[in-house]
Formats: sequence, C-alpha cells, structure tokens
Amino acid sequence: MRTWSKELTFTTRKRREIVDITDEVLRAVRESGIRNGILVVQLPHATASLVLNEDEEGIKQDLLNKLEELVPSEGGYLHDRIDDNAHAHLKSAIIGSSRVLPIIDGRVIRGTWQNFLVLEEDGPRTRTAVIFIMGE
Amino acid sequence: MRTWSKELTFTTRKRREIVDITDEVLRAVRESGIRNGILVVQLPHATASLVLNEDEEGIKQDLLNKLEELVPSEGGYLHDRIDDNAHAHLKSAIIGSSRVLPIIDGRVIRGTWQNFLVLEEDGPRTRTAVIFIMGE
Amino acid sequence: MRTWSKELTFTTRKRREIVDITDEVLRAVRESGIRNGILVVQLPHATASLVLNEDEEGIKQDLLNKLEELVPSEGGYLHDRIDDNAHAHLKSAIIGSSRVLPIIDGRVIRGTWQNFLVLEEDGPRTRTAVIFIMGE
Repeated sequence: MRTWSKELTFTTRKRREIVDITDEVLRAVRESGIRNGILVVQLPHATASLVLNEDEEGIKQDLLNKLEELVPSEGGYLHDRIDDNAHAHLKSAIIGSSRVLPIIDGRVIRGTWQNFLVLEEDGPRTRTAVIFIMGE
Repeated sequence: MRTWSKELTFTTRKRREIVDITDEVLRAVRESGIRNGILVVQLPHATASLVLNEDEEGIKQDLLNKLEELVPSEGGYLHDRIDDNAHAHLKSAIIGSSRVLPIIDGRVIRGTWQNFLVLEEDGPRTRTAVIFIMGE
Repeated sequence: MRTWSKELTFTTRKRREIVDITDEVLRAVRESGIRNGILVVQLPHATASLVLNEDEEGIKQDLLNKLEELVPSEGGYLHDRIDDNAHAHLKSAIIGSSRVLPIIDGRVIRGTWQNFLVLEEDGPRTRTAVIFIMGE
C-alpha cells in the first residue's frame, strides 16, 4: 500500500468557465501504477469547484447559467466589501472542491458521462489540481 | 491493508424518487471483513445523486420538492435539445454522486439519521452503486 | 499503513451559525503522526454541514444568508409536521457532511482560504466531528 501524488497546473481564460481535466487525471492514475485504491482530486482553492459531469457544451453552459441564477455574481454580498468574489466563494463552499472515486483493477470507477470538470468562478487565473492516489 | 468492492444493482420506478440503500451498504461492509478503513459509495451516473439523510417520507418529499424548485425539470436548458434530462445532470453535478465515511472497529461512522439515499432524477432505469472499502 | 481517529466535541450557541474547527483538525493530523495519506472529516449529523472556505466574517454571513434564501428556515415543509428542522436536513443533504483531503509530507493539502467550517443549522446543541486519517 502506498501513496502517490501529482500537481496539475493550468490557466483559466475567462471570469466564469468550465475546464475539463479528465485526460490529465486518467493519465496520472496510469502513471501512478496503482491498480486498486482511492483517487482524490482536490482543488486547493476557495473560489473554484470540482464536479463530475458530462463534457457537453450545452450542459456546461446550463450549469454556469443555473449557478449564476442561484448565486449571482453581483449579489450585494458582505464579502465584496473587501474583495469582489463572494459569489465564487459561496459556490465553492456549497458544491465542494474535491471528488473521491475508487480505482479497481486499474480503472477509475466513474460513469460514461462523469468527466472531471473544474468550475472556475473567479478567473482568469492559474489554478492547481492535486491528484492523490492511495492503494497498491 | 487491502481493498474490497461490490456492485449493487437496483431499479428505480419513477422519473424522480429517492431509494434507500443503507441496508445493502452496511451488509457489504460486514461482508468485506474490513474493520478499520474508508468506505466510498459511488454512483457511476451523471443524472443521479447520493446524499446522507433521514429515511422519512416527509423529508424525502421535501428534498424532491426543493430540488424541483431550485432546478426545475422543465427549465429551457440547452442540453435538452439533445436529451431531456439537463435538470438531472445539474442536480448530480451540484450535489455529487459519492459519499465517503470512516469505518472504525467495524462500524460505519454516521449519524442516526444519516442513511444512504440515492436521488433518482432521470428514472425509471437500472442504477448501480459501487461500494468500495479500503482498510484492514 | 494504519488508521487513526479522534472525536472532536463542541457546542454551538445559536440556531444558525458557522464554527471554524481548522485548528483542531490540523492539531489532530499532527497528533496522528501520519505524514502521507487521506484525511476524512465527517459530521455524524443530518442537520449540520461541513464546508471548506474562508474564515472571514463577511463571507460566513453571506453563506448563512444565501442558504436562508435558497432553503428558508420556515418553508412549509412536510417534515416540520414531526419536527421543526426540515430546512437543516435539506441543507445537510445537498451540501454534505464530510470533506476528504490528501495529506502529503505531513501537510494537509488545502488552499490558504480553505478552512474547515461547520455549518450549524439546527442549534444550539452539542456536535461531534470525527477526524479520521489513514496512511503512514
């Protein structure tokens, strides 16, 4: 039983967008050589979120739209007195910044439409995703 | 330290409903023989969600109602041009499809009212829950 | 590879408030002596939630306000016929009661603004957080 990790760095280009990091995550799992264990993908950020869902243009825009409706960028938030990204904090707190999946026989256990999607709500900026695997 | 897994298959009966899989999850933990470790319950689906909460008729209907209010089934979503389940994708992305709990001395660490509830939003269909345990 | 756990008990003072347990969590990680592995912080409660975010007064109040807007305390819920805390159940189900983070070289992998915040929605009462670590 051992642990393995890798930092993935990437740049977002818009204030609000969705970035698919699935290929990089799956490549890291192969690199690790770990065939049975647990995969944690964690964003060390309080203004971005990680979700599992389909990498399809329509649903990604639907997600951005729905979140803007529920937690508008401009919402008269108290935190905006010292910064201008309260909405991004709220989304990250509610949705979460990590996802955990099993690895069985070298395969990450996920559905056909469960891609790793980073939800940027305070870009553009450089973001990091930590890919951590424990197993054997 | 070892890993153990089991696939649970079940059929949902309505378009939107909540299915309690707690008994099956706890039985699997006992079957595994692992007494200290981590339990991951993961749905390999992008249109269902997994929550921990009380298996009481009122609160289950409240949850379905609240989610329908926040993310209506009919919402003029872009994804609905190619499919008709955008609302289910959105709920799954936001709520998540897995939950992770510790196992200590053979007991899953959860509250009295924390049952494993599958939130079906795109049924009826056959669903799978992967129960994965790592420990000793 | 081994497991280690600790129960943290604390009392909330208001019906709805946010309690930062970051110092206690980090102290527990040091106590464990585990330098590489997985940290699970889990609340065994169906009416409280755990989020990662900034311990700043404005954003904490923003989060309480936003959740009250989306899931009002008084909402004519069915569950309130047998209890008066349906809103708290709904928030816990949607947001979740646990967070999972990697530990690498003795450090919990989190962002500068990712504190462990317990979202109390049904206080005041005594709450428990289970800190579970598996690794070596």
